[in-house]
Parts: sequence; structure tokens; C-alpha cells
Amino acid sequence: MPIQMELRRIIISELDAHQIVILKEVEGERNFPIVIGIFEATSIDRRVKGEESPRPLTHDLILAIVEQMGGEIQDIVISDLKEHTYFAKLRIRKDGELTEVDCRPSDAIAVAVASRVPIYVAESVLGEALEEEE
Amino acid sequence: MPIQMELRRIIISELDAHQIVILKEVEGERNFPIVIGIFEATSIDRRVKGEESPRPLTHDLILAIVEQMGGEIQDIVISDLKEHTYFAKLRIRKDGELTEVDCRPSDAIAVAVASRVPIYVAESVLGEALEEEE
Repeated sequence: MPIQMELRRIIISELDAHQIVILKEVEGERNFPIVIGIFEATSIDRRVKGEESPRPLTHDLILAIVEQMGGEIQDIVISDLKEHTYFAKLRIRKDGELTEVDCRPSDAIAVAVASRVPIYVAESVLGEALEEEE
Repeated sequence: MPIQMELRRIIISELDAHQIVILKEVEGERNFPIVIGIFEATSIDRRVKGEESPRPLTHDLILAIVEQMGGEIQDIVISDLKEHTYFAKLRIRKDGELTEVDCRPSDAIAVAVASRVPIYVAESVLGEALEEEE
């Protein structure tokens, strides 16, 4: 069963190319960090702060494409962890069917924050992520 | 009639937040610059140089979503210029119908380069862009 997570913190350092988001269990205390790029971190951060942009940014464009093609983003899942690299999926519902599109967790989280859909993490990934940190 | 353009140059300056792409008419000599962000410039540059990424980057994700939802990106059009700001559209063909999704020219050009589809500019935009430069 995937575990629902929420965005707990975004740590942006202008001195570093790698930024960090921390996801925390909605119904629990487990949390783990994911390293992401500055572009995705800024995109997530703007969204969390409710900053508006006059023109659609890249993750808004993703939402617009899905909607205009008749679909709806249902949720995102961080589905795998291989050799310290996380893998994720956008889950799109259309005409009652579910399509899973592979992506990086950073894009998945940016889309989830932009479209206000739930963020899930596979239980196995959460277990491994916590082991890696120890 | 929109004019087909090609990417002529990408000028990336690490000292500046704004990067430049220069589009040139395929069947002519007119060209004009568009200022874009470093993220989109890097995305376009990597693509032009044929650099591969182990995981899908944001503009690859856009292609994957369109494909998995049963569509195809037909082309992109830089459709408008208002108060020094360009506006663009991704044109997606699906089940014989054309859907136009509003976006920034930088995303449109990154998608065009990633999916190898033509880049068009409205004749009125090309005229105004050239006037602005004079």
C-alpha cells in the first residue's frame, strides 16, 4: 500500500545546484529528503507560497495539456528507489482509465503541488529511504 | 500565414539569469531573438547537442504525457507579441482534432526541439519583433 505523504519543507540553497524537499507521512512521523534541481525547487516553492505568474510555467503547462486532452491528474507516486535514485509516476485518469507516466520525483512533486493532488510513496521506497539515511 | 522558423543560436551566459535563443526563417533571412530562462535554455541546448538523460526531463515528460494520452504534437506557434512579451501555443493532434495549449515560447521551443516538430511564428509577430529591434 502506498503511503500518503505531504511536503514538509523545501530547503533552497543558492550556493548549491542541489536543493532538498522533505516529505513526511500524513498519518505518521516518518519523513525523508529528496534531492532535486533548483528549477523544480523554485517551481514548488513559488507554488507553496501562492505566487502567481502572468504566463503558465512549465508545470502549469503540464496541467493544461492533461486537462485540454480530457484527463485529470489523480495523484503522483514515488514508486521506486534504485541505486540512490528515486523514480516516480504521474497517474492520469481519463475516460475511467488510469494511465501512469514515468517521471522524476521533482516533476511529480511540482505537478502535485500545482494541481493539489495527493503525493504517495511506495512502502518499500519509504523503508529503503529510511535505511539509506541511517 | 505563419512562417516556419528554425533555431539558429542559443546564447547561454552563466552571469545572467536571461538567456537568448535566436530563431531564423527557414526560407528567408529574417531572424529575431527571444529571451528565455536558464532552465529552458539548458534544456534546449542539451537537446540540440544530443545529450541523453537517464531519467525523463520535464520537456520529455510533456511528450510522454501527450503520447500516452493518445495524442501527437503537431507543431508549435509563436502566436502573439504584447508589451514585449511573446505568447505561444503547442498544437496537439488527437483523433483528427487539433487542440491548442497556451504556453511560453521557451517551453514551446524546448518541446519542439525535443519532439522534432516545426516551429512557426505568426507573420504579425515576426513583423513586430523586427520593428522592436530597430
